[in-house]
Amino acid sequence: MELKTPPGDERVRSVCTKCERVQYINPKVVVATVPLSADKKRVLLAKRAIPPVGTWTIPAGFLELEEDAESGASREAREECNAELVKSGVLLAVYSILRANQIQLVYKSTVLNEDSVSPGIESLSVKMFEWDEIPWQELSFPTVKWVLEHMQKNLNSSVILPQLRTKNFDGSFSEH
Amino acid sequence: MELKTPPGDERVRSVCTKCERVQYINPKVVVATVPLSADKKRVLLAKRAIPPVGTWTIPAGFLELEEDAESGASREAREECNAELVKSGVLLAVYSILRANQIQLVYKSTVLNEDSVSPGIESLSVKMFEWDEIPWQELSFPTVKWVLEHMQKNLNSSVILPQLRTKNFDGSFSEH
Repeated sequence: MELKTPPGDERVRSVCTKCERVQYINPKVVVATVPLSADKKRVLLAKRAIPPVGTWTIPAGFLELEEDAESGASREAREECNAELVKSGVLLAVYSILRANQIQLVYKSTVLNEDSVSPGIESLSVKMFEWDEIPWQELSFPTVKWVLEHMQKNLNSSVILPQLRTKNFDGSFSEH
Repeated sequence: MELKTPPGDERVRSVCTKCERVQYINPKVVVATVPLSADKKRVLLAKRAIPPVGTWTIPAGFLELEEDAESGASREAREECNAELVKSGVLLAVYSILRANQIQLVYKSTVLNEDSVSPGIESLSVKMFEWDEIPWQELSFPTVKWVLEHMQKNLNSSVILPQLRTKNFDGSFSEH
């Protein structure tokens, strides 16, 4: 492989010196969900067994091939929290995280089996938190805080517009 | 490289036989925009010089590293139509296209320099179409049709909810 700008392209890419095949590297999609109790009074969070260990997060992970975004978010909830979710079709947020080269899509959902959620291999523990119990100082990432605040503010809205934020390289963010 | 399921994983991946490094392959993000005239009576489309050649599309392409989604869509409009856009921050649609392993994000925008748009290297021609002139039978992809219909229906709405659709493997689609 060598680094060069292919014909008609605007960026430097890794190109095979034998077959001229271009290796495109693009941002990845992280899918996530805010899993609510049926009465919307509680939200399911997982305490991470992977870095940042011990912080609390919503279920989230990389979208896999042959998987739609919302189903991917539900799969993560199954893997991390043994939670079965009812999908809502409601997109809560789209975050562009430039520093990590991620586009994060966060959906709203409802937990079906609230009494039997339990930690998966990537979680130390899981818990349905009342809104006033959420450990705001121990959340895993800024995006988790942003989307929980957005969800809480819109709990009783019939129309939830997606929250669109771009995290810039200097750590600040632009908001729409 | 060999194909195997890494420890703790649920999927078969390409893994380096020497260093055990896993090569993850994930869906890519396509960013697109519906560029309107200031009075919203016209929409900018490009006639493709690349497959499917001769069909009409909205500006669209793969999101690049270190680029946020809406800026990526604006870049595509510059490259394909020499169009300078005013971003709106409004997300019109999120499509999961399983067959192509794509997540498509489509934004609303306004064309600044309507009189001077012109075809870029990937376009045969570009045109600001009145809504009743749009070549519905000659659009490049179903997603272009879906989002143009969605935009037209919501031209005068103050609240535009994103249209979320999942294209299934059998060609049908699920809609929220």
